[in-house]
Amino acid sequence: MTPYHQLKKIFKKISHLQYLQRILMWDESVMMPIGSGNHRASAIATLNSTIQKMLINKKVKKLIELARHTENFDEWNLANFNWMDKQNKLAASIPTKLNEKMTKASLLAEQAWRQLRAKNDWQNFLPYLEKSFEIVKEYADRRSQVLNLSLYDVLIDEYAPGFNQTSIDNIFSELKNAILPLIQKILIKQENETVNQSIGAFPIEKQKLLGLQLMKALGFDFQHGRLDESHHPFSSGGPLDARITTRYREDDFFPAIFGICHETGHALYEQGLPKQWLNQPVGKVNSMAMHESQSLLIEMEVCCSFSFFEFLTPLLCEQFGQQDAFTSENLYKLVTKVRPSLIRVDADEVTYPLHVILRYELEKELFSGKISIKDLPARWDELMVQYLGVSTKENYKDGVMQDVHWPSGAFGYFPAYTLGRLIASQIFSTFKNFHPGFEQQIRMGDFQLLNNWLRENVYSRGSLLSVDDLLTKITGNSLKIEHFIEHIKNRYLT
Amino acid sequence: MTPYHQLKKIFKKISHLQYLQRILMWDESVMMPIGSGNHRASAIATLNSTIQKMLINKKVKKLIELARHTENFDEWNLANFNWMDKQNKLAASIPTKLNEKMTKASLLAEQAWRQLRAKNDWQNFLPYLEKSFEIVKEYADRRSQVLNLSLYDVLIDEYAPGFNQTSIDNIFSELKNAILPLIQKILIKQENETVNQSIGAFPIEKQKLLGLQLMKALGFDFQHGRLDESHHPFSSGGPLDARITTRYREDDFFPAIFGICHETGHALYEQGLPKQWLNQPVGKVNSMAMHESQSLLIEMEVCCSFSFFEFLTPLLCEQFGQQDAFTSENLYKLVTKVRPSLIRVDADEVTYPLHVILRYELEKELFSGKISIKDLPARWDELMVQYLGVSTKENYKDGVMQDVHWPSGAFGYFPAYTLGRLIASQIFSTFKNFHPGFEQQIRMGDFQLLNNWLRENVYSRGSLLSVDDLLTKITGNSLKIEHFIEHIKNRYLT
Repeated sequence: MTPYHQLKKIFKKISHLQYLQRILMWDESVMMPIGSGNHRASAIATLNSTIQKMLINKKVKKLIELARHTENFDEWNLANFNWMDKQNKLAASIPTKLNEKMTKASLLAEQAWRQLRAKNDWQNFLPYLEKSFEIVKEYADRRSQVLNLSLYDVLIDEYAPGFNQTSIDNIFSELKNAILPLIQKILIKQENETVNQSIGAFPIEKQKLLGLQLMKALGFDFQHGRLDESHHPFSSGGPLDARITTRYREDDFFPAIFGICHETGHALYEQGLPKQWLNQPVGKVNSMAMHESQSLLIEMEVCCSFSFFEFLTPLLCEQFGQQDAFTSENLYKLVTKVRPSLIRVDADEVTYPLHVILRYELEKELFSGKISIKDLPARWDELMVQYLGVSTKENYKDGVMQDVHWPSGAFGYFPAYTLGRLIASQIFSTFKNFHPGFEQQIRMGDFQLLNNWLRENVYSRGSLLSVDDLLTKITGNSLKIEHFIEHIKNRYLT
Repeated sequence: MTPYHQLKKIFKKISHLQYLQRILMWDESVMMPIGSGNHRASAIATLNSTIQKMLINKKVKKLIELARHTENFDEWNLANFNWMDKQNKLAASIPTKLNEKMTKASLLAEQAWRQLRAKNDWQNFLPYLEKSFEIVKEYADRRSQVLNLSLYDVLIDEYAPGFNQTSIDNIFSELKNAILPLIQKILIKQENETVNQSIGAFPIEKQKLLGLQLMKALGFDFQHGRLDESHHPFSSGGPLDARITTRYREDDFFPAIFGICHETGHALYEQGLPKQWLNQPVGKVNSMAMHESQSLLIEMEVCCSFSFFEFLTPLLCEQFGQQDAFTSENLYKLVTKVRPSLIRVDADEVTYPLHVILRYELEKELFSGKISIKDLPARWDELMVQYLGVSTKENYKDGVMQDVHWPSGAFGYFPAYTLGRLIASQIFSTFKNFHPGFEQQIRMGDFQLLNNWLRENVYSRGSLLSVDDLLTKITGNSLKIEHFIEHIKNRYLT
């Protein structure tokens, strides 16, 4: 066995344990009894450090050096090898103790967040968040020595490799400048629009049935995945065991249905990854930015289009009976209603980027030392008023406590949402250039063409290319904001 | 840190991974999408071999030798240390390759069994079973060199440590001789009894509600456990995350309810284990024989008693409405109806031991080389006719294919059920000597006294003592069949 083949065997075992880790993460959010949290956090920390030990085993380092000088890599194997090298170096930079401390702290903070957010209890949440931030800084500091990046850039690199504070500053300032005046125009245009709210109780069982119908139509493979319910929608598992969740409200079916559409986008990506590279680094999703682009492409570009409502409306009537609100025109108006609001995950797609830019600004201030964690609520409120004209004063639960990311240690994640959103528009616009008649197929609920195209152009390429190279390969260009802006103008101002 | 403290740290990590392993085993049976089976089997095999490597790490062996000569153990720590030593020796006897092969083969055979049993397809099942048997023999052979026991005794020791073929031969032949004539007497006594079958559809949701009520009454802690549905009832997880399952039939609530009572017995044991030893070998359940004794004590001694039906009947009426069959007298008659039948898990408690003795006889013949796997259906039929007067000719699914144990590699497990049943009667009879008025509390649905007593006498002792020592400590005697026989006579012939 060549050194590289030995490496592949080791990374296959690592991938096995990572798959189990993701199933256990799903279990923690969906199934685990509440009293098991502490014990589970310890056990997961042990599993994580076991994986880390496998990654940083001296033998791995030695095999990497041997393989580097002996192996004749083709394109895929070279990319795979480079990921092995990077993962080994990064893992080696984090002491096992820190890794365990981080895993446990993040799980405990996440569990505390669930309790304390409901009570709007910022004071008791503060120490958890401070601890998360301290540990993440220590972690970023270690990694920065390998990557030769600033602390915040280390974290950006984790979720959107190839991007950094400078490139994101450029993109986000362009985006903010374009979006703010558009919001004003859209608000004026929509001011006198009349919309019928859907009314009634929408039994959860029926929402679930409808969700399953949509997942099937969108191409979800139920032999290798499932739908469940959780506090917040998410997707986990992996290519052969893709699990998505949503949350239900009896009085409104939109949150559950769009949660499902979004997470189905994630799952389609996972299920479309190259099977021959299943257990190797190059066979994983390209990055979280690309992952979010695929969920947002399905949710925002496809499932919020007027054509989609022509497909959806009869299905809604079938499940919930007819009512005045159930016309494609009205439902489309409901979904494309722009309204500056407090909660990121409930925001419309026009104001959404501002929620992300706000978090990005605060993260920059935190990492530059300009502010500290305890200053967050005041700064949050300030920027919310500035960007969206709404205040979160003393309303922590709908302000700084609304997201799980910070307590769970995922500082630097937020930009990936908006980068992903921009990527989604850019990729979908290329797809529509190739297939200008696709609207008609959405109307029929036939997503096979799109599915196949995304599989061929995005999913099946795994982590072969960087975000930028992949985007350029698919669309001919690096990331631009213009496709997204074009989309907003088309959907909201024509 | 002393060598023993270092060992405790290592075994804590092992215990963490074993907990995750049990949650993943639960997931595989309850949640996993069907197409993930193969991939999951590989991943679990990797986790198992990871645990094995931690157990047999040279450092562990060295620490054990150091600790043996330096540590002044108290009773609990000595027992804990002896378990560490035994587990290390046993794990070291199994090559990693064999361990992985075994895990994967057993998961795949179990998955095949689910499909092929439904089709009564013995021919395609045969190679799976042959492979399982071959691997188990190889495994037992390796362990036999450490334990200095015969192949079959190695397997018995795994589930009922301290017992062996000789001691079980004695117990089972005594038991068979006592039971066979009793069955004849009971059949004659019950011949002219009239019983009302319960009729109607029993909605699964209501069965589940009733099940949850019973779990609560019996003392199940829902902060640290949950109830789900699976192909076959089982319990998994651990002390802080005890998960039980049952299966539902619309036309009959008994299987689901008694499945729940049985598995609740297992879970109460887990939840009552000594918390201060949570992650150490001595803090685990004593043995599978003792585990089964606790499930059977709750199911058979408590939940099949007449007093229990006085508690249960009003709850049944509440869920399903009144009907002629719903009187305590009639339901008790239904549950205590003795009827020689094909399926072990559906058998009444009087004929049940014969199902186990049959399997025990066949296992002995397999391990002595007297028969081979392909001979099983014919020998099965022969013994079924001899013991119970019913034939399974060409009915493989209700004969040799009915149990998951053999395909999953658990040869040697079956005796633990009947040893457990005998232990249950012996322990419960001691309890009743101390608390002769307990029937009255069952009638009220108050199980706290029993719960506390079992917690104090059984659960909280973990693996401190051998099966025999524990039983002697609680009841004053080694295992005897007389308490069980007495129970059968009291319940069925007075």
